[in-house]
Amino acid sequence: MVHLLSKQTAMLTAKPPPSCSVFLFIIVLCILGFYTLHYPHSTPSSSTLRNALRFHQNFLSSATNYTMAAYLRALTLHPHLAGTKPSLETIHYVETHFKDLGLDTHTVQYKTLLSYPVHASVSAHFSDGRYVELPLIELPDQAAQGVVQPYHAYSPSGSAYAKAVFVNYGRDEDYRRLGVLGVKVTGCVVIARKGGLPRSAVVQRAEANGALAVLLYTEGDKFRKGFERGTVMTGMGDPLSPGWAGVDGGESLDLEDSEVLKRFPKIPSMPLSAEAAEIILGSLGDAQVPPEWRNTLRSKVDHVGPGPTMVNFTYEGERKLATIHNVFAVIRGLEEPDRYVLLGNHRDAWTYGAVDPNSGTAALLDIARRFSLMMHLGWSPRRTIILCSWDAEEFGMIGSTEWVEQNLVNLGSKAVAYLNVDCAVQGPGFFPGATPQLDNLLFEVTKKVKDPDSEALTLYQKWTATNPDVSIQRLGRTDSDFAPFVQHAGVPSIDIYYGRDFPVYHTAFDSYEWMTKYGDPLFQRHVAVAGVWGLLALHLADDSILPFNYLSYADQLKEGYKDLSNNLLDGTVTLHPLVTSIQEFAFAAKGAEMEAKKLREQETVSDLITLKKRALNDRLMLAERGFLDADGLPGKKWFKHLVYGPPSDHESKLQMFPGICDAFLLARRMSERRGQAAIQHEIWRVARAIQRAASVLGGELP
Amino acid sequence: MVHLLSKQTAMLTAKPPPSCSVFLFIIVLCILGFYTLHYPHSTPSSSTLRNALRFHQNFLSSATNYTMAAYLRALTLHPHLAGTKPSLETIHYVETHFKDLGLDTHTVQYKTLLSYPVHASVSAHFSDGRYVELPLIELPDQAAQGVVQPYHAYSPSGSAYAKAVFVNYGRDEDYRRLGVLGVKVTGCVVIARKGGLPRSAVVQRAEANGALAVLLYTEGDKFRKGFERGTVMTGMGDPLSPGWAGVDGGESLDLEDSEVLKRFPKIPSMPLSAEAAEIILGSLGDAQVPPEWRNTLRSKVDHVGPGPTMVNFTYEGERKLATIHNVFAVIRGLEEPDRYVLLGNHRDAWTYGAVDPNSGTAALLDIARRFSLMMHLGWSPRRTIILCSWDAEEFGMIGSTEWVEQNLVNLGSKAVAYLNVDCAVQGPGFFPGATPQLDNLLFEVTKKVKDPDSEALTLYQKWTATNPDVSIQRLGRTDSDFAPFVQHAGVPSIDIYYGRDFPVYHTAFDSYEWMTKYGDPLFQRHVAVAGVWGLLALHLADDSILPFNYLSYADQLKEGYKDLSNNLLDGTVTLHPLVTSIQEFAFAAKGAEMEAKKLREQETVSDLITLKKRALNDRLMLAERGFLDADGLPGKKWFKHLVYGPPSDHESKLQMFPGICDAFLLARRMSERRGQAAIQHEIWRVARAIQRAASVLGGELP
Repeated sequence: MVHLLSKQTAMLTAKPPPSCSVFLFIIVLCILGFYTLHYPHSTPSSSTLRNALRFHQNFLSSATNYTMAAYLRALTLHPHLAGTKPSLETIHYVETHFKDLGLDTHTVQYKTLLSYPVHASVSAHFSDGRYVELPLIELPDQAAQGVVQPYHAYSPSGSAYAKAVFVNYGRDEDYRRLGVLGVKVTGCVVIARKGGLPRSAVVQRAEANGALAVLLYTEGDKFRKGFERGTVMTGMGDPLSPGWAGVDGGESLDLEDSEVLKRFPKIPSMPLSAEAAEIILGSLGDAQVPPEWRNTLRSKVDHVGPGPTMVNFTYEGERKLATIHNVFAVIRGLEEPDRYVLLGNHRDAWTYGAVDPNSGTAALLDIARRFSLMMHLGWSPRRTIILCSWDAEEFGMIGSTEWVEQNLVNLGSKAVAYLNVDCAVQGPGFFPGATPQLDNLLFEVTKKVKDPDSEALTLYQKWTATNPDVSIQRLGRTDSDFAPFVQHAGVPSIDIYYGRDFPVYHTAFDSYEWMTKYGDPLFQRHVAVAGVWGLLALHLADDSILPFNYLSYADQLKEGYKDLSNNLLDGTVTLHPLVTSIQEFAFAAKGAEMEAKKLREQETVSDLITLKKRALNDRLMLAERGFLDADGLPGKKWFKHLVYGPPSDHESKLQMFPGICDAFLLARRMSERRGQAAIQHEIWRVARAIQRAASVLGGELP
Repeated sequence: MVHLLSKQTAMLTAKPPPSCSVFLFIIVLCILGFYTLHYPHSTPSSSTLRNALRFHQNFLSSATNYTMAAYLRALTLHPHLAGTKPSLETIHYVETHFKDLGLDTHTVQYKTLLSYPVHASVSAHFSDGRYVELPLIELPDQAAQGVVQPYHAYSPSGSAYAKAVFVNYGRDEDYRRLGVLGVKVTGCVVIARKGGLPRSAVVQRAEANGALAVLLYTEGDKFRKGFERGTVMTGMGDPLSPGWAGVDGGESLDLEDSEVLKRFPKIPSMPLSAEAAEIILGSLGDAQVPPEWRNTLRSKVDHVGPGPTMVNFTYEGERKLATIHNVFAVIRGLEEPDRYVLLGNHRDAWTYGAVDPNSGTAALLDIARRFSLMMHLGWSPRRTIILCSWDAEEFGMIGSTEWVEQNLVNLGSKAVAYLNVDCAVQGPGFFPGATPQLDNLLFEVTKKVKDPDSEALTLYQKWTATNPDVSIQRLGRTDSDFAPFVQHAGVPSIDIYYGRDFPVYHTAFDSYEWMTKYGDPLFQRHVAVAGVWGLLALHLADDSILPFNYLSYADQLKEGYKDLSNNLLDGTVTLHPLVTSIQEFAFAAKGAEMEAKKLREQETVSDLITLKKRALNDRLMLAERGFLDADGLPGKKWFKHLVYGPPSDHESKLQMFPGICDAFLLARRMSERRGQAAIQHEIWRVARAIQRAASVLGGELP
């Protein structure tokens, strides 16, 4: 068009006769006429793209650390445990922030079963008749400030007066080791250090070994007065509405329903501080601590017991219905409002929650601020962006799980990706997790974000320099809000945090002071997390072709297959179905990648190209759903994802195919023939799931 | 544009100076330039629509009865039972027909467990010592032509020599009635007339009442030598691959696996002709036939027995793996190739299959002919149309079920609708079935098709005249290939046939001769069926907004609720969840209808409108999937659709919510408290399914 115009002007320099001015007028007229007629069709997507990139620059340049410091300060003024009055202030704070930014804001409530302590006491009674009441709060004044006393949510009430015994991490292998030493834990109060297993698994194993109660402590050289609070409920979401949303007035199971009871442990448990634990552990007699335990022990323990020290333990708790609140801000997509990119972080905390989770909340609020700025500058995303502030994550991902269950079909057909941030900033170092089709995007985005702890490096340079073989965690864990999205709804997901294993996890010391003193004094790590998080969202929301690459998924599946054949395979079953299904998947991934490349080059807009892109994007978005299976994992049917999920066998080295791992475990309790058949059936189920994903990605019907 | 052009020509009449010809040249140049540049963007959809309507006219005008007569003749030359050699000819015939029309044709094979007879004999032994061997084939020469001897597929082999007893339709109420008469059927050979129950249900009930074997006959005034062959397997698809596709080399369960065994009856059974049955029934003594049975009896029976007549029964059959073939012709959509409109009909027959199913196959082949004609005239559908010729339907919807299981995720995200035709032409009268969002389309289409049995009437006029309250059947039945699409995959579906209850069903008399003599001598009913079927497909494939109307679905749900509260509700449980969920659904249906109306008026094409239409169409397409539940119906988890499906309680008058009906049935065997809880839970599950459908249709996340 510009070309034609210049052509005209060229002619006009040739001094035309006056009447020609009329023609000139007409020419301009037709040109303008066509221009206006056809403007809507003139390659908007390329221009949108240009604009989008410009706005992505705005996003990066609008980063500020002081805003995030202010948000964090405000969020952590008081403890804000889910379902308690003080938590309402944080809800209000987030709502107001979103609304003041002019974002479309709403809050969804659920009535769910939470759990709170009423009374607890633990005393150690020594062989010489002395006894000591153990401290059950970090600092007395914190109790005064409303910090909840240390407890395990959903632990039954109960008491015990019995010999103490040390069981290391409380894993099956630890009990086997004790067995070799001739140590019986039956009728004892078990003391375990936090390590290999989830809290609930430690209690289950103690229960299975006949213990009366469990005291769980976290080792550490600093903050040894800290108690790690936490839930001991198994499974995800409100126990009264398994698989559906616990909306007020909806179906709610009876507290005595077997489906409910199976979620809770049968013996009571409590957290201890390292300091308190050592008072007991230091006084144990009988068998020596095995050397392989001693190597990693950071607390003073010589003997495992049982006894002679007795523990007098009482815990009284209550389970009660409480209202929880998820807060949402929706930025409606201009071209594809029915495609969702979700950013999620929980808001509820065991205590002040400066790291867990509000460092993430601060980042979420700052992203909201910067997105709203961009909107004032004229930006609208291509797809809908939803900022999610979850409640009651600490009790078992309850806020996010209820919402995912409530919106399962809509999310299943429309959710592009879920981006989770929980303990955003714990210290130095970048530690992302992702479903593998998002690995490449993660790399690309970190190349655009400055590293917070070095002068001239990008986050990508620092990250890859410090980990030669860059490791991205996979999302089979159930310890944050990505779990319902990946493992129940099959939504491609990312989980990012900065630093790890921070020493004040779930203690009263997880405060703004700790963050400013140790975690992120200058809040530049907050800036880095928000930068990565927001930029991931912007690409997923604005790129006309979704930035998914399934080749890395195929590689991961191959790795998973190798681990399986190396660690588990004993020749009695065949992994062949897995091999062929992974080949099918890799083939489909290559095909999709080539199509994406071709379509990326076609930036013009026409009815056909638009629909072609949408069709390919649907395949990219939906392939992950192929891994879901209606029957779910054996014995855990809520977990529908057959590739990533929690295995029952926590000691397995395998990161993938939890159902197959568990089948090997279960097979030990069956006749050889039935056991092998069960394993082979699980292998078939996984193979078919991978085939389904391949066929979605490939897009063709046989 | 035309307007601007005329403007130019107007100017040119004003005798311009020669140099102006250059300008004229340039003007034309720019105009052409823009024209070519922008042609692809100039409102194609409205023009496509005009074209589409023109092509739909071509479709109607290209109807011919002689082509269909020829197809039917060719298909019915020989019996073509699934898995047998003669059936290969029909596969080849359909493949060749599609290929010769230039259609993209392919065939998908499965290895599945079918069942064939080896030997059978039935003799009646009278009290006076006489006995008679009963005829076990319609006509000897038909056996010679390869008609399979009458049998029940998957019946176990076995024999019995015992008293005969007449059990009417073999329903629970019939056995209760016999109980009142003091008649015990334990240890007897049961004789039942075909009526209220599916074949397999008759055998199950006889088994439950202690019978040794079942002889099932079909009443009739004509063709009384006919034997109704059929399957007695429960459930859908290949028993060796429940829930997944029985592809060669895939997982296949052991024949002795409990999952497999539970699909088969435990006592042998066989069909009898009305003539043969009367030889036994006429000679029974003991209790009189109850008057309420006698009223509907068309065969001569005075007493129900048991005895004195004895039946000597032997059946020997074999179950063996056989290869089955689904044949497909794909007409790729131009704008939305990733959206599928499926037309399906099975090809396999018990005998010659002139009515069942090849009257439908003839219609399918003629639609293929006419679509190919339209393609030569320049038509391409907006969405992909797939013509499906299924195999092994008679054994339990095996061909269609395996294919649906194989493509579950792809169909789940891309199938717009499935249009089934089985026994297309049985005689006079139009008898459609549909999931309710397709009711309106059915009405509209029948207004465009001529009624085959009256001069100046449309099919719609005749249909509505003969049924003042036009009844469209619903698709909770499992007797044809729509079942896997509706009940496993949640795809909106239609099932149409002309005439009903034809007397030669599954007998050797279902032949071309019967069709030309009784069913459709002039093949004009074939023309009508093909017209309706093809036109339904054309609208679903070409209309830019899918012709779905969910208001009728909401009405149906309300009806279902009323029936439920009238027939079942005893005040101990609440239907309130159902009421509110149906209100939500009706609200969403109104909303979607209004949006559709608005968008239909926007025929211009722009990136935004195109995507808006696509987004609304996705909601319309996917709403049906909301009714699916991963856990499926209680005790029948393969059946995922909670609104339409097969109830275990065949005597229930309820057409909807099979899970709730069965819960009432099961509750009788539980404590009152547990029974009520179970019913209430099913009500909740259905309510949530309707809510899911509503949220998909509404399209908004809470």
